[in-house]
Amino acid sequence: MKVKRIDISLGGSKVVILNSKDADKLGLKPYDRVKVVNEAGKSITALVSITKTFINEGEIGVVKEVGESLGVKDEDEVKVIPSAHPSSWQFIRKKLKGEKLSRNEIYYIVRDVVSGELSELEIATFLLAEYFHGMSIDEIVYMIEAMVETGVRIEFEETAYDIHSIGGVPGNSKVALIEVPVVAATGLLIPKTSSRAITSPAGTADTMEVLANVSFKADEIREMALKTRGLLCWGGTLGLAPADDIFIRVEHPIQVDPPSQMIASILAKKVAMSVKYLVVDIPTGKGTKAPTREYSEKLARLFLDVSEKLGITLRCAVTYGGQPIGYSAGPALEAREAIEALQNRRGAMSVIDKALSLAGLIFEMAGLEVRGKGYDLAKEIFESGRAWEKMKQIIEVQGGDPNIRPEDIPVGDKTIRIESPVDSYVTHVDNTAITLIARAAGAPVDKGAGVAIFVKAGHKVRKGDPLIEIYAERESKLTEAYNLALKLKPVTLEGMLLKTIP
Amino acid sequence: MKVKRIDISLGGSKVVILNSKDADKLGLKPYDRVKVVNEAGKSITALVSITKTFINEGEIGVVKEVGESLGVKDEDEVKVIPSAHPSSWQFIRKKLKGEKLSRNEIYYIVRDVVSGELSELEIATFLLAEYFHGMSIDEIVYMIEAMVETGVRIEFEETAYDIHSIGGVPGNSKVALIEVPVVAATGLLIPKTSSRAITSPAGTADTMEVLANVSFKADEIREMALKTRGLLCWGGTLGLAPADDIFIRVEHPIQVDPPSQMIASILAKKVAMSVKYLVVDIPTGKGTKAPTREYSEKLARLFLDVSEKLGITLRCAVTYGGQPIGYSAGPALEAREAIEALQNRRGAMSVIDKALSLAGLIFEMAGLEVRGKGYDLAKEIFESGRAWEKMKQIIEVQGGDPNIRPEDIPVGDKTIRIESPVDSYVTHVDNTAITLIARAAGAPVDKGAGVAIFVKAGHKVRKGDPLIEIYAERESKLTEAYNLALKLKPVTLEGMLLKTIP
Repeated sequence: MKVKRIDISLGGSKVVILNSKDADKLGLKPYDRVKVVNEAGKSITALVSITKTFINEGEIGVVKEVGESLGVKDEDEVKVIPSAHPSSWQFIRKKLKGEKLSRNEIYYIVRDVVSGELSELEIATFLLAEYFHGMSIDEIVYMIEAMVETGVRIEFEETAYDIHSIGGVPGNSKVALIEVPVVAATGLLIPKTSSRAITSPAGTADTMEVLANVSFKADEIREMALKTRGLLCWGGTLGLAPADDIFIRVEHPIQVDPPSQMIASILAKKVAMSVKYLVVDIPTGKGTKAPTREYSEKLARLFLDVSEKLGITLRCAVTYGGQPIGYSAGPALEAREAIEALQNRRGAMSVIDKALSLAGLIFEMAGLEVRGKGYDLAKEIFESGRAWEKMKQIIEVQGGDPNIRPEDIPVGDKTIRIESPVDSYVTHVDNTAITLIARAAGAPVDKGAGVAIFVKAGHKVRKGDPLIEIYAERESKLTEAYNLALKLKPVTLEGMLLKTIP
Repeated sequence: MKVKRIDISLGGSKVVILNSKDADKLGLKPYDRVKVVNEAGKSITALVSITKTFINEGEIGVVKEVGESLGVKDEDEVKVIPSAHPSSWQFIRKKLKGEKLSRNEIYYIVRDVVSGELSELEIATFLLAEYFHGMSIDEIVYMIEAMVETGVRIEFEETAYDIHSIGGVPGNSKVALIEVPVVAATGLLIPKTSSRAITSPAGTADTMEVLANVSFKADEIREMALKTRGLLCWGGTLGLAPADDIFIRVEHPIQVDPPSQMIASILAKKVAMSVKYLVVDIPTGKGTKAPTREYSEKLARLFLDVSEKLGITLRCAVTYGGQPIGYSAGPALEAREAIEALQNRRGAMSVIDKALSLAGLIFEMAGLEVRGKGYDLAKEIFESGRAWEKMKQIIEVQGGDPNIRPEDIPVGDKTIRIESPVDSYVTHVDNTAITLIARAAGAPVDKGAGVAIFVKAGHKVRKGDPLIEIYAERESKLTEAYNLALKLKPVTLEGMLLKTIP
């Protein structure tokens, strides 16, 4: 068959497109596998997609990944041979039946996820089997080891520390911008890599990107980290545990995120960064990933059991996440709030106390302070201004402007305020509503978009006081977010009618 | 954005392809949804796929289904607005949590499956939720009603009968070629529609296609059925319960076939064909869909409970399916075996007795015979030659040659025999191995490909006696099937070494 190259992302899998007549001749259905052999005898296994007219009979459409691995160009001749499932598919079926998988079986699944041998449908089947049957501690450990082995590893000659939040609360992305410089100011190494938002208004990488670059190569990260002791980079382009990125890409459309996979995802990236001491923050409360105390403690137990087998010393901090963290959600608004806090050495308790408590746990693990005293050291560093000095170094080494002032950070110039219609008390600020409104306003893609939150539960408000302010870069997004806010009512006031029936 | 039309089958879903820069601007990820609005204001919801170079910035690639429903052509301007999941997705998530679904909830899921609103990943999630949690009788009934409502119905003014096998045994496709003319010879109406093979060497539609056409329109089917009383057509192009075809397309790559979905699939097609009396054949034994007697009886009970609510009178026949049916597997070989049996009024017991028993059950249900006597009437019709006369009429009305002789049916001219290496007894003929060998030889796409089976369990064989013979149309397929046969050893002989270790 004659090659026709096509650049379509069919989810990163290796896909070839055949004319339906050729597919019939070969007895092939969509998602069946074929071995494609080039003239030099080099072969690759790919998934079949079928078209009636886009590819002619005798032609084979190859997506970019297939074309590059095979080294073929348009008009080249290739042979197409129907082929079986990879062996990892049998292991996915085994998990589907509820059986435990061995180290090798999990390794083969992860390897075939990374190489594109397994289709998204097959990966979804695995994730759903995991969702239904769960994974044992050993299985999670095997998964992490396989995810690390099939990716890039960054080694440090000395002990690396890290703090990671499982997220799920709007406003949380800025906390890292305070805790990392506090830790690094003592000379401890904290080369933090973080992710971009998947469903939240901002990931730490999105927020830091307002202030500096976040995409670096592995050797740049090593070099910069040794200079400043702390970093706030994006893990995405580094190739750390690449299987994880693919699992997340499949989890997103089916909205399934098994706890075992979340733990594997977080710890694999940490093992790949050679982190030896880790604090995991588990925000708990309505609208978070751990809605109840019981569930958050169960998660913490899992984290501890798995990290022990990996040789990582870990402490879990269950924190309050029942309402937004600080007074903003969205990359630029949060970056501004973090810089203000560092410069002025004060700000929202939910931000500063949280950052200092988490940094304090690291100090205790590192032996800089006895248990229970870590927070005091963190507070001292924060209030002395050493944290802000360190943050300026980090911003500079990552190519940003260390002399940035909060008011210089551009935020969306289309804004609208929602005011209290009555004199009352705030009873609740809803995480999910704030998240949806901030995203409707354009966050995290529009960096200046988001929501400023003026009140928290318990606050007294007078008629006309601002409750929230929506920021957007585009008028259409502002309107969309405003309409959503009117519908979702993110701030509940005492005495407010919650619903009228009918 | 400017339309660029593309004919790619991305699984029949409504898909639009965006440049990654536009996707980033809109905050869209693969499988997110957008509303696409044409200049006249008509809109359609589609799933997003993302490319880097194949579609330029400002362009939107639309697959055939989207282009046609929107009525747009190349260069037309459309608006693209991010959009939410359809409500049916919430019902799929409900099922994922193990909750029961209402009639309306199932209707919306089925409607969105048919219209292409749900992606294959989302449909797979539903099928896996069904696999894990099962469905109640009511849910199966709702599913069937929804599948029928969203498709074509063929009505008959008189009572229609049918016989359906759940399949799973090689060689089974030919049984219908005997039972249908036996039933129709009495004047009962049996307008059988059947499927093509999905994982077996031949479906009844594949085998009948060796003798006549099987693709007809609804009004042709009505007209022909009233002429001959019996038909053997393919259900595929009729649009009966089209949701079922989509469910099967998603089940195939993930190899998940929940019993509730199998029952819904079979009964929906029967309701759509207005069948009132139905016999369901459940082959049981090693390598079938019902490996144990207990499971086959459980399945039968489910069939009965569901059909009762649908107003269909049903009898289930649990039949022996532990080894292949008759002496062949593959469309042409099976068509030849069926025609030989009808013409000569004899053949393999496993074929003829089975066909006559199933036809006999129909006669008892129709009141032509008392219970226990249906088989005798069927045998009389078969032995009198009336069944063969009726089959000739059916072949003729479907556009085939009624004077066909078995030896005229072309079979693959590339053959190889596997002979017994010793004097011995046959202890087992393996269904799965025969199926895989026949498919490796090219069945069902190469109609002449398949396996002739010379022995069954209990047969005495002498060294050099043929055990099986592989037929193929292409040398490469013959070699592939032969190598597989050497590896799988489909016929077990007494005293044979089953495995050597290591």
